Amino acid sequence: METEKRRIAVIGGGSWATAIIKMLNDNVLPKDVFWWMRNEETVRIIQKDQRNPNYLSAIKLNLEVNNISTDIHYVLKNADVIILCVPAAFLRDALVGITKEQLADKIIISAIKGIVPDNNQIIGEFLQVNYKVSVNNIAVISGPCHAEEVSQEKLSYLTIASQSLEVAEFVAFYLNTNYIKTNISDDIYGTEYGAVLKNIYAIASGICHGIGYGDNFQAVLISNAIREMARFLSVVHPINRDIKESAYLGDLLVTAYSQFSRNRTFGNMVAKGYTVKSAQLEMNMIAEGYYASNCIHQINKKYKVDLPICRAVYSILYEKHSALLEIKLLSELLT
Amino acid sequence: METEKRRIAVIGGGSWATAIIKMLNDNVLPKDVFWWMRNEETVRIIQKDQRNPNYLSAIKLNLEVNNISTDIHYVLKNADVIILCVPAAFLRDALVGITKEQLADKIIISAIKGIVPDNNQIIGEFLQVNYKVSVNNIAVISGPCHAEEVSQEKLSYLTIASQSLEVAEFVAFYLNTNYIKTNISDDIYGTEYGAVLKNIYAIASGICHGIGYGDNFQAVLISNAIREMARFLSVVHPINRDIKESAYLGDLLVTAYSQFSRNRTFGNMVAKGYTVKSAQLEMNMIAEGYYASNCIHQINKKYKVDLPICRAVYSILYEKHSALLEIKLLSELLT
Repeated sequence: METEKRRIAVIGGGSWATAIIKMLNDNVLPKDVFWWMRNEETVRIIQKDQRNPNYLSAIKLNLEVNNISTDIHYVLKNADVIILCVPAAFLRDALVGITKEQLADKIIISAIKGIVPDNNQIIGEFLQVNYKVSVNNIAVISGPCHAEEVSQEKLSYLTIASQSLEVAEFVAFYLNTNYIKTNISDDIYGTEYGAVLKNIYAIASGICHGIGYGDNFQAVLISNAIREMARFLSVVHPINRDIKESAYLGDLLVTAYSQFSRNRTFGNMVAKGYTVKSAQLEMNMIAEGYYASNCIHQINKKYKVDLPICRAVYSILYEKHSALLEIKLLSELLT
Repeated sequence: METEKRRIAVIGGGSWATAIIKMLNDNVLPKDVFWWMRNEETVRIIQKDQRNPNYLSAIKLNLEVNNISTDIHYVLKNADVIILCVPAAFLRDALVGITKEQLADKIIISAIKGIVPDNNQIIGEFLQVNYKVSVNNIAVISGPCHAEEVSQEKLSYLTIASQSLEVAEFVAFYLNTNYIKTNISDDIYGTEYGAVLKNIYAIASGICHGIGYGDNFQAVLISNAIREMARFLSVVHPINRDIKESAYLGDLLVTAYSQFSRNRTFGNMVAKGYTVKSAQLEMNMIAEGYYASNCIHQINKKYKVDLPICRAVYSILYEKHSALLEIKLLSELLT
């Protein structure tokens, strides 16, 4: 990778974006780190305090005042490497007015775990189709990694996937710290779809917990979920992969077994009788898996993979079927 | 299976034995269920109260007074099917004085998750070598299944493994209830070794938690653990198996992610500075994984499989190496 490719922009102001800024602070000079977010007030506070007031506010960041901006054109113009880190449902909005020329020759990294609604594309596809980004300029960052533990510098492992080994290694280099280890992968599609599916399985996990199923059942659910994920990925992108690797199984585990997972919490609330709308209002945040559930349902009309867990979640969330009944039916299919 | 083969004895008085008695109560008449345990006083209480005062005492059992006994000869003589359910370290003691003729033609089911110390045999091997039990008369019961959730009738899945499909189906028939589903497998060695290894991994999980590693790391640890298990089983008993099935991955998950797992608790205490001895006294119970760690270490001298997690646990427990240092070294090997 040419050495001049070193100015990096992070797009998004949430907890994961903040955690990534923290990692970059260990490897990139402040003058070369750019940060876009929507909210003017938040930008001003970060410029003044060097902390994100809304997320991981305990982290002291190290940023140049002029590099934090609500002007996406300014931020993109200044950076060679773009890390996308907004909820998938907001990506189109964030990039509104941006042309494919503005992204030409840049390395675009998705730290988004979701599918762009309406046209049901994972981020890699979305960039290729809509912005003509070359697949070799695309990378994906995947967990297992809660941002909260990054802020506490708890040892965590990231997987960087790209079809270009050079790009993957370049990205890994900038994220490695003494508490972040990176694995390299060439499976961008599998990594993205796995990260999307695991949010649906975390919702399933929350639903089952909410209606009273115990740890014994959770273990069976998750062991079936990873087999379901393997089935889907082997059809959608049939390459040789080990689904037991951290990017797939590890990412599923950290999400489905965490009490802090918003997807799991969302599933739990739905099981307790909250409507989807009221659960989202109560949580005051987006459960990516809610949108993913519909997107995977639509995408799977083409592939027709047997996805009983995704199917049950979709029925409960979108067809308003009884969680009790759907999980009972699902339990008959698990082994 | 001949219909007269229906008198069943459970050997052991712990929580898992008590849970199995509860399952049998749904499928076998009380006159055909026999129960051996060591403690006279406990036998008298169960005869009077129909509850085990020491474990899962909320469960009301249904037993014939004369079928509960401390006389193993009496119990074995009356039963065609024997379910072994004592800690592996105590199996030899429990069977002392029993000859191979007394076990001839009986179906012997191991509900033990451990290795018989000294000669380092899993239960299936121990029975074949020491009692000449035919491999086709042996079955293994495996989880993921905490006994506590069986007592609450929370839906749980058991795997019944036997090289004889007929025997596996026979055993499954007697354990199926409206809250227990059974899977059938022919992998008795893999199922046994998997159940043994998962206790070691649960200790590792407890150790890591105890020294401050977080959920991100746990997810990586467990995703490496299932790959380590797969490697070991593929060398020790190379048959075609899917390690993601509930008997392997599910059993690992329910143990490693449960706050109630005694193996995980034991690891946590060791990490906090308890000696092995004091942790065991404090817990007032056996952490099977402690013995398993040594047994697998000995067994693996023959197979020489790369088992970095088992190796780290062995070093901490038996070579008194620093947990902090060993897990740091281990973390360099995980991906």
